[in-house]
Amino acid sequence: MTEQQSVGIASAIDHTELRPDAIRDQIVVLCREAAQFSFAAVCVNPVWVAEASRLLKDHDVAVATVCSFPLGACVPHVKAVEAKRSIEDGASEIDMVLNIGATKAGEWSRVEEDIAAVVEVVNPTSGFVKVILECGLLSDEEKALAAQCAVRAGALYVKTSTGMLGSGATTHDVALLRRAVGSRAKVKAAGGIRTLAQAQEMLTAGADRLGTSSGVAIFEEAHQTVKREAQD
Amino acid sequence: MTEQQSVGIASAIDHTELRPDAIRDQIVVLCREAAQFSFAAVCVNPVWVAEASRLLKDHDVAVATVCSFPLGACVPHVKAVEAKRSIEDGASEIDMVLNIGATKAGEWSRVEEDIAAVVEVVNPTSGFVKVILECGLLSDEEKALAAQCAVRAGALYVKTSTGMLGSGATTHDVALLRRAVGSRAKVKAAGGIRTLAQAQEMLTAGADRLGTSSGVAIFEEAHQTVKREAQD
Repeated sequence: MTEQQSVGIASAIDHTELRPDAIRDQIVVLCREAAQFSFAAVCVNPVWVAEASRLLKDHDVAVATVCSFPLGACVPHVKAVEAKRSIEDGASEIDMVLNIGATKAGEWSRVEEDIAAVVEVVNPTSGFVKVILECGLLSDEEKALAAQCAVRAGALYVKTSTGMLGSGATTHDVALLRRAVGSRAKVKAAGGIRTLAQAQEMLTAGADRLGTSSGVAIFEEAHQTVKREAQD
Repeated sequence: MTEQQSVGIASAIDHTELRPDAIRDQIVVLCREAAQFSFAAVCVNPVWVAEASRLLKDHDVAVATVCSFPLGACVPHVKAVEAKRSIEDGASEIDMVLNIGATKAGEWSRVEEDIAAVVEVVNPTSGFVKVILECGLLSDEEKALAAQCAVRAGALYVKTSTGMLGSGATTHDVALLRRAVGSRAKVKAAGGIRTLAQAQEMLTAGADRLGTSSGVAIFEEAHQTVKREAQD
């Protein structure tokens, strides 16, 4: 692994803290680490968006947040209001959960309209939307069709999982989503990514971003690998 | 157990379906069962409130829904918008999750304001608010102080758990909440209640409502017990 590859991994990481009992000190540390390691973004709950935006205002780290998380079971209007407020508070990336029930029922126009309601308030702000599919609850066909809905609705990313329900990211799902969206969207892998090996597997399978709360450990493992290989 | 006690248990049950991948058929069955067994309410995700209200319009079963569920990590304005929309869609009971991070940080005025924002849109409609504390993430002192915040903010119920994070309802927590709120509020036990024995324990500990997806099994167990005791 080269220094450049190690930096590349860091720049793909959404440094994530979504535990509901997180307090300010944890958000401060998260933002400080994201700036120090040049991660792509922090990903925090809506209540922390304004604070994270203040903490990162002089740094090239985006503030991502979640919307209708983790169940995706709010109506489109409420998802849009939540996303709009997060944008106003300083977020530029909205990780929304799609309507999982409508996906299971094959109600694709409902799935697409739900995503479009959020895209409509986010895209004009130069922010963008990542659509969480919760792959652990879907069949492969549902994953592919839902990913195509997300693209049609104007989302920039499809994302494998919430990390809270069912299973986390798998290379199978990352590769499947990559094939389903082609070059029309990006792919974020999230849920259970804790080691450098896992991070590399996800990137190799086609992920553009990695959602993880283990970003620092992964970066340090990468850094050690670079050092070790340089000494060999 | 008497027939009357068995009916009393049914009338305390919030018949609950909060799985994000539920489809219409499951909501139809849920509503039919709630009407058949005279449960207090159905508890469904916001996307199903309008449908459940239609299905139950001729029955004496309330429609309850959740708000900022299960993380409680939306800002107060978004919680209020979500609750308002659910009321407009036909819900009369809003089970909201409080701001767990603010609770852990002891920011009691923030906790109270967050609850009050939802109460303000719900109470004037003759609906009411249940505040979910997520006891599994709190110390006993935090549970008691949060419950008192809920009462001051005008909530009718405090509720033990989401059933999604940490542990579910315990008799310890039900009794603790009952002591904390006295006669100024009611207590709902939720999370992991699957048997008649558990339901009875929660009611004995001071619960007024039981949130469970096993309402039918519990009612049938009660019904069998009444029959068996009548034969003895």
